[in-house]
Amino acid sequence: MPEHMTAPMGDGFDQMARDAVYRAMFTRRDVRSHFLPDALDDEVLARLLLAAHHAPSVGFMQPWNFIVIRDAARRADVRELFLAARELELPEIEEERQALYRKLKLEGICESALNICITCDRQRSQGSPLGRWHNPEMDLYSTVCAVQNFWLAARAEGVGVGWVSIIEPQALKSLLSIPEHVTPIAYLCVGRVSEFAPKPDLETHGWGRRLPLPELIMSETFCGQGEVPLKSAVAHLNAVACAPADQRVAPAVPQREPPNEASALSFNSLNFDDASASRASQAGSGTWPAMVLK
Amino acid sequence: MPEHMTAPMGDGFDQMARDAVYRAMFTRRDVRSHFLPDALDDEVLARLLLAAHHAPSVGFMQPWNFIVIRDAARRADVRELFLAARELELPEIEEERQALYRKLKLEGICESALNICITCDRQRSQGSPLGRWHNPEMDLYSTVCAVQNFWLAARAEGVGVGWVSIIEPQALKSLLSIPEHVTPIAYLCVGRVSEFAPKPDLETHGWGRRLPLPELIMSETFCGQGEVPLKSAVAHLNAVACAPADQRVAPAVPQREPPNEASALSFNSLNFDDASASRASQAGSGTWPAMVLK
Repeated sequence: MPEHMTAPMGDGFDQMARDAVYRAMFTRRDVRSHFLPDALDDEVLARLLLAAHHAPSVGFMQPWNFIVIRDAARRADVRELFLAARELELPEIEEERQALYRKLKLEGICESALNICITCDRQRSQGSPLGRWHNPEMDLYSTVCAVQNFWLAARAEGVGVGWVSIIEPQALKSLLSIPEHVTPIAYLCVGRVSEFAPKPDLETHGWGRRLPLPELIMSETFCGQGEVPLKSAVAHLNAVACAPADQRVAPAVPQREPPNEASALSFNSLNFDDASASRASQAGSGTWPAMVLK
Repeated sequence: MPEHMTAPMGDGFDQMARDAVYRAMFTRRDVRSHFLPDALDDEVLARLLLAAHHAPSVGFMQPWNFIVIRDAARRADVRELFLAARELELPEIEEERQALYRKLKLEGICESALNICITCDRQRSQGSPLGRWHNPEMDLYSTVCAVQNFWLAARAEGVGVGWVSIIEPQALKSLLSIPEHVTPIAYLCVGRVSEFAPKPDLETHGWGRRLPLPELIMSETFCGQGEVPLKSAVAHLNAVACAPADQRVAPAVPQREPPNEASALSFNSLNFDDASASRASQAGSGTWPAMVLK
């Protein structure tokens, strides 16, 4: 094992802890279809909000608020906004993709345990725009960081999150009495789920594919060639994760069960996928690239 | 221990794994002062970029690119842009805070191992703006999610990241040959660090304080009252983490050493802070609220 995988332990994250952070990222999903009717404990929700509240913010501005929406009638109204917005968005989609667009489930507003609207108060530290004078949108970006913290923490708690962006923002502001100087950043459906899908829904349904990361890396300037060793390292990570099972190095745990069942037993299996993870209990750490789903 | 802390294990994250995710969030810092001259391995950087690439994106658009900037002369030029931008921002800051503003170190452009500019290509899936017709800024937000994934993965790898937002975006675009339809989202300083500060620099230097999270939670509509049990749960999390040491419950690990040293030995100590974590090796999981730094 390369030295860097074991050596820099001075920061308190051992390999299992690092793996857990990556696992939250690689298995996080934008959930629409798998919400359960179960309630969400306030203790869990409190942790998710505390995670969001520890996002970075420009000038330590912390511009976010969290509107928790539980009322069924209000959620039905939000869903009406979604349905209206979808009808307006549909004709903007390439014609050959409109049938697929219609079939996609794009929200879980009413069937999730609750909804949260995360907003950005643009006036919170008006007098001292540290870091925002040249880039006034930085407070919006800080709020997005809070959304992503919330989402990743939720994944680690087994809680699904779906971000509904097909909605007319002024109509949403009006429905939630959001004042003019506050921007709604994310309308989230939140709740326990039956599973986290092994791949993004849009990939599964053929809407898009994961782009090859090496092609997105540039050197020194936009479109700058170079970084060959870095791109090789990226390609190697993906290759290990995506190689057919029989071309992979032997897993750390002997495969005593048929492949699918074996992969349910441990993250050490290179057949890791998240559906098997759902069946695993108390699963530990494992070979890192095995967690990468393409 | 409440049932929810142990029961919902069906998703493959045990408590140690969940703790690791939260720890990355609570101990992540916007690093300016603690960069070391050490190089950063391509293998580590590859993992950070793969984490970024697994961010959520609207319509599975993946609008990001990653420009890796290593050249010292180019970085010196970027720093000139920062210095010029700071001079323009300074008079916009409240007069009584300008002296403090001048003293703050706000970037590590030249002393970090490398810089990365994460950009958003606004034309990447022009024909089918799924989720962007009503909210065209969603591709920018997706790119911010990639930044936050990168940042958290870096924390887990012991790598520091600082986001420089005091910079004129058109000047940066020109310097890095970024085309008109591409927006630079984050200019990041990236590298090994001597430590992760126990608190955000701006808190340490008295620029701001962490806002009380219960006051940021609203019910059903903006400024809506309610969610009393949720706010209590949030306040309880903070109270456990912030209580003076002698009012806390006994730590799981007996304190055989003076408090500061004891806290270096285990995350189970309620005296957890990140500087002590830096001295701990192979530290395991521990009492969750102990990780919360106010």
